[in-house]
Amino acid sequence: MSETDDLRATVEALAARVRALEDQVEIMQLVAQYGPAADSGAAEAAAGLWTDDGIFDVAGNFELRGREAIAGMLGGPGHQGLIANGAAHVLTVPHIVIEGDEATGRSYALNIRWDAAASRFLVGRVSANTWRWTRTGQGWRVAERVNANLDGTPEHRRLLAPDH
Amino acid sequence: MSETDDLRATVEALAARVRALEDQVEIMQLVAQYGPAADSGAAEAAAGLWTDDGIFDVAGNFELRGREAIAGMLGGPGHQGLIANGAAHVLTVPHIVIEGDEATGRSYALNIRWDAAASRFLVGRVSANTWRWTRTGQGWRVAERVNANLDGTPEHRRLLAPDH
Amino acid sequence: MSETDDLRATVEALAARVRALEDQVEIMQLVAQYGPAADSGAAEAAAGLWTDDGIFDVAGNFELRGREAIAGMLGGPGHQGLIANGAAHVLTVPHIVIEGDEATGRSYALNIRWDAAASRFLVGRVSANTWRWTRTGQGWRVAERVNANLDGTPEHRRLLAPDH
Repeated sequence: MSETDDLRATVEALAARVRALEDQVEIMQLVAQYGPAADSGAAEAAAGLWTDDGIFDVAGNFELRGREAIAGMLGGPGHQGLIANGAAHVLTVPHIVIEGDEATGRSYALNIRWDAAASRFLVGRVSANTWRWTRTGQGWRVAERVNANLDGTPEHRRLLAPDH
Repeated sequence: MSETDDLRATVEALAARVRALEDQVEIMQLVAQYGPAADSGAAEAAAGLWTDDGIFDVAGNFELRGREAIAGMLGGPGHQGLIANGAAHVLTVPHIVIEGDEATGRSYALNIRWDAAASRFLVGRVSANTWRWTRTGQGWRVAERVNANLDGTPEHRRLLAPDH
Repeated sequence: MSETDDLRATVEALAARVRALEDQVEIMQLVAQYGPAADSGAAEAAAGLWTDDGIFDVAGNFELRGREAIAGMLGGPGHQGLIANGAAHVLTVPHIVIEGDEATGRSYALNIRWDAAASRFLVGRVSANTWRWTRTGQGWRVAERVNANLDGTPEHRRLLAPDH
């Protein structure tokens, strides 16, 4: 092996590590966009974080499939009423496991609301979140997000288990 | 092009990607320092996260310009009384968009307080945050942070919009 | 110095920067695993985030040393009762300072609980967290985590100070 070949192999190995880091950061940043888009009422932008046929499953509430359905929910009276009253969908940085062009993750989402009658903020929901992401031609997108309240329901907390 | 020239071009492209990752991580870590500095009463350290003439605009409350003004607020009776009673300024990881030596971002801040009379913690504030960061000779610093309660005020939630 | 030597030096410098980024991301991801493991009742997985003789010090409550002690607490009636009622241990991304094979950090942890009697979530605890991590043969692990409620106790908020 020539010196140049040797160095090229080193650079290729380094490039693979850089790509792994880029994947991690890109997925973190994808998740960081949901709250701001949802809470500003940007339904299309929020739905665009999913793949075309991506799933948003809120356990015990609804299971949406596809960007149109997700945008419809976010543009609908329930969500729009929530943000008109004052609401924050605060998502944490997930634990992310990447395998090639697929990735999975676990995290939390807080839903905090302004209670105008009592002049105070309150914690409306705290949920376990599991994610499947997929690498598309336009970058990483959400293939599935499951969201389930941590209200003592055993199936909900099991979503967070490492071996789930 | 020689083999070495070719490899050098590959390495330069990789170095640009590494720098982009470093920028992301450095800005995340800059934001992660605000809460610990503010809540421990380290007014100078917190103010040092801004540029010399950086802006901290808390909508409907105050607009500070420059490190001295920011340190003055954090060292003043309002903030010091807050932390003496028990308070946490919990900031989320922003969505960060970098363009050369400037960057913008969107995130949340929770202000959680200990209510000694009722022996409980409560959510004092939840705010939309927009950021402008700038690369200085000492690294990335905050050029402007705007912070506005998500209490139903339309202008406040619009801060979080992707096209804001 | 030959052209190849020159390029090799450039690649080595780049590799050191990539490793620094990997360390940051790995530690962030280590911390991101605590909540999901703890809240799903995966006591061994949560304890495995620490070194063999790692410390988990909850000020004014307990100081545990070693994975067995940590797993014992998480598998015990106190923690298991908490998660059976519905609980979320929501940790923020720390400010991380790495020096070789050791690192330190500062962050927050929220403990949010479902209050079934009142049908609402409430903020049970908000704590200052300091971390010491160490690089082991299996990757970064927690050498010490100190956790102290931000309830106005001066020593607790001092944990968050930059010069602590």
